[in-house]
Amino acid sequence: MSTKARNWMLLIITIVVVFLLGVLASNITNRKAEARFAYMPKIEIDENEADNAVWGEYFPREYQSFMQTLDTSFASYNSKNGHKDLLDDSPRLVVLWAGYGFSKDYNAPVGHGYALNDIQNTLRTGGPTGPGTGPMPSTCWTCKSPDVPRLMNEIGIDEFYKGKWADKGHEIVNPIGCADCHDAGNMGLRISRPALAEGFEAMGKDISEASHNEMRSLVCAQCHVEYYFDKKIPGKEGIPYLKFPWKNGMGVEDMEAYYDAIEFSDWTHSISKAPMLKAQHPGYELFSESVHAKRGVSCADCHMPYKTEGGQKFTDHHIQSPLANPSNSCQVCHREETKSLIGDVTERQVKNKTEAVELEKLLVHAHVEAGKAWELGATEEQMKLILMDIRHAQWRWDYSVASHGASFHAPLEVSRIMTSGTRIAQEARLKLARLLAELGQNYPVPYPNIETKALAQEYIGLDMEKLKAEKAKFKKNILPTWMKESVE
Amino acid sequence: MSTKARNWMLLIITIVVVFLLGVLASNITNRKAEARFAYMPKIEIDENEADNAVWGEYFPREYQSFMQTLDTSFASYNSKNGHKDLLDDSPRLVVLWAGYGFSKDYNAPVGHGYALNDIQNTLRTGGPTGPGTGPMPSTCWTCKSPDVPRLMNEIGIDEFYKGKWADKGHEIVNPIGCADCHDAGNMGLRISRPALAEGFEAMGKDISEASHNEMRSLVCAQCHVEYYFDKKIPGKEGIPYLKFPWKNGMGVEDMEAYYDAIEFSDWTHSISKAPMLKAQHPGYELFSESVHAKRGVSCADCHMPYKTEGGQKFTDHHIQSPLANPSNSCQVCHREETKSLIGDVTERQVKNKTEAVELEKLLVHAHVEAGKAWELGATEEQMKLILMDIRHAQWRWDYSVASHGASFHAPLEVSRIMTSGTRIAQEARLKLARLLAELGQNYPVPYPNIETKALAQEYIGLDMEKLKAEKAKFKKNILPTWMKESVE
Repeated sequence: MSTKARNWMLLIITIVVVFLLGVLASNITNRKAEARFAYMPKIEIDENEADNAVWGEYFPREYQSFMQTLDTSFASYNSKNGHKDLLDDSPRLVVLWAGYGFSKDYNAPVGHGYALNDIQNTLRTGGPTGPGTGPMPSTCWTCKSPDVPRLMNEIGIDEFYKGKWADKGHEIVNPIGCADCHDAGNMGLRISRPALAEGFEAMGKDISEASHNEMRSLVCAQCHVEYYFDKKIPGKEGIPYLKFPWKNGMGVEDMEAYYDAIEFSDWTHSISKAPMLKAQHPGYELFSESVHAKRGVSCADCHMPYKTEGGQKFTDHHIQSPLANPSNSCQVCHREETKSLIGDVTERQVKNKTEAVELEKLLVHAHVEAGKAWELGATEEQMKLILMDIRHAQWRWDYSVASHGASFHAPLEVSRIMTSGTRIAQEARLKLARLLAELGQNYPVPYPNIETKALAQEYIGLDMEKLKAEKAKFKKNILPTWMKESVE
Repeated sequence: MSTKARNWMLLIITIVVVFLLGVLASNITNRKAEARFAYMPKIEIDENEADNAVWGEYFPREYQSFMQTLDTSFASYNSKNGHKDLLDDSPRLVVLWAGYGFSKDYNAPVGHGYALNDIQNTLRTGGPTGPGTGPMPSTCWTCKSPDVPRLMNEIGIDEFYKGKWADKGHEIVNPIGCADCHDAGNMGLRISRPALAEGFEAMGKDISEASHNEMRSLVCAQCHVEYYFDKKIPGKEGIPYLKFPWKNGMGVEDMEAYYDAIEFSDWTHSISKAPMLKAQHPGYELFSESVHAKRGVSCADCHMPYKTEGGQKFTDHHIQSPLANPSNSCQVCHREETKSLIGDVTERQVKNKTEAVELEKLLVHAHVEAGKAWELGATEEQMKLILMDIRHAQWRWDYSVASHGASFHAPLEVSRIMTSGTRIAQEARLKLARLLAELGQNYPVPYPNIETKALAQEYIGLDMEKLKAEKAKFKKNILPTWMKESVE
């Protein structure tokens, strides 16, 4: 072939290659366009839409993965039946919460899809016989359903928090879902619960200034936080208004000081008479202490990592423990074998757990010793500092364990808190030993026999049969009407 | 130009390029050969050579970098003068160590090059007036100098450990150096101290099977460990034989159980009369609990990272805190800003430190309360469990802090230990409260005024002027003869 012919051939080949590249480029663009269509359909969802299935029509992948939160198979990591009875696991908790709902019933957490099922079935919400009855206030619904922002919009925040839990059972019918975190208008992340925005305000921050990455944690922080019901807000007296105790900061000592300053207590302990605090689930606060938070990792990065299906990259809405899904969560950053990563987490959990168990025993003993002191005629004045020690020690224990994930998120902070809790619990017992000696009993008060949940519940005087019967009646008579009313 | 001419030109260019590549290859090979020469000279070093400068003639880079351990500028991270007085920093330590040498004098660590200087100048080694005098045994030299393996070779291990510290002052004249870790024959890493090999044996392990990577930590573990002097070895009775308490394992509870089983104590506390344990510097044990150890990182990786000078890559023998050199230590793996990495470490240190300070206070109080109980006529029987609690609690505190680096190496393990130490210290105080009530004093024993080191030393009855005078006399009369004898 001549040089000329060769040059011509080269030109032709070049033209063909460039043409094919053009086709490829067009193809890529088309697929991108498809992806855009799949992610941003023209949607018509009402701003108050609480039915997750309606959202699911537009976002099938997100919806279908969210429905997987009903899958309890991974929970076997925690237990055999996926809903481990934590009072069975540690009957000490029954004594620690004597006089408070948690001593009746407390299970390991399951998926978001069970939110309503859980709160309706727990003995903690008791057996209401109709509106205005039962032990819990309406505020307890706040974190359970996208019907909450809808209802708040419809009747106002104060009105929502007002009244009994049973009053709004027919209104709250969709389990946690889309509208809790998403804006129906633009699908962006939104804060649907006023308490978080108000908590930020109390710290002098404006939540509307949060970045998208921060929002990927903050939507979770609407519920996974420490909170209390403030019944003394001027102009709203008597309404159990949901509030985060963040005015002094989000540290365990900050919140303790806050509660002490306003002399708040969740309940009075039925044995020691201590003015107790129940730590709820300060997950966001403890996560904020973590090295992951410092490196800019958000809740969603590990609990809802990206996933690809049919060429579509989307956020996996099967919210779960990252330990169930290390390849998409941990291993995106950590180049270690699954076994080794999970081994590290387990080791931290075991260390914190050992501390927690020992502290539980000290606290049980302190309550019982305080009970003995009252029995022997101790005065309020003699008991005051002791009860404050018990309050602070148990608060620290509870704060460390209540959010479940803390041993992963911030194991050292948990341990630090546990150390101080241990010191203070023993301080209470030291003062009690002196007081008991003064009252004529200078020998150890025996540790109660609370080997099982049943023994512990009997020890604190709970009539479990009655509670269960009330619940059964509620489930037979009331619960079906809620479902029915909501369907109509 | 014709096609033919062009082809010829191409051929010539190819030949030239290939020739130049050959030259380059040869050059590279030469440089490699030079490097081999620089690293593996034909050396003639006696197997007992203790003079670091002799080794330095063959390994100038390693030697010169090792000499930098005399540089105290980074120690300003800890203090202004590079040798912070830790008893000044926390006068509580004086009371915790009452009756033991550490209450006299205890400074922050400095570089390896100061090993002899330090031990000669500390008040802990007292003011010997000649052979056979002074408070410390010969065993105390064990970690201080490459003269130790030499002397052990020459006179035998038992003979080395025998006698007083002052007996061998003239023999030990070179500070920690080359022969402590290196084999003069092949420059490989070697275990020069029998205690580590024996410690491995006690655990059923054979240290000669250690990999090179393990050796990069084990040479450090010859000294940076927990140890005690066993005077009851059959056939060697009375010789303070250096031993690691590893038979049950390297955990803090394992060693505690070991010491309890053999009823060993380092000293009897002069106030509480508790049979105390002094944790030495369990650095290797706590490092073994670390995530770095789990990932196969060795001591040398961070404390002696690789360095390049004049095209030569070598191990930096300027052994120091990795925080003084994060770019070569931390940042080889961690892609984070120095400030952020050091911030993480500081945060962990601060958390552990807070726990340590609180525990120190409890322990001081426990010793003082126990002293009061003795004063009021407590019996041995009444005190027994209390003193064991004090022993265990202080052991755990000391174990957590004594190795200095533990808050970096294994902060969670430190905190876990501190939690248990706190619980046990308070348990002692609880029992003491009951005992004191029984003995007629049912009110708190005041915490002593130990605001300064001087006050604390006065409180425990130390005659510091006398100790200092003895030391001054030793430095004037004895120390110069050691230097002289060794030079001759």
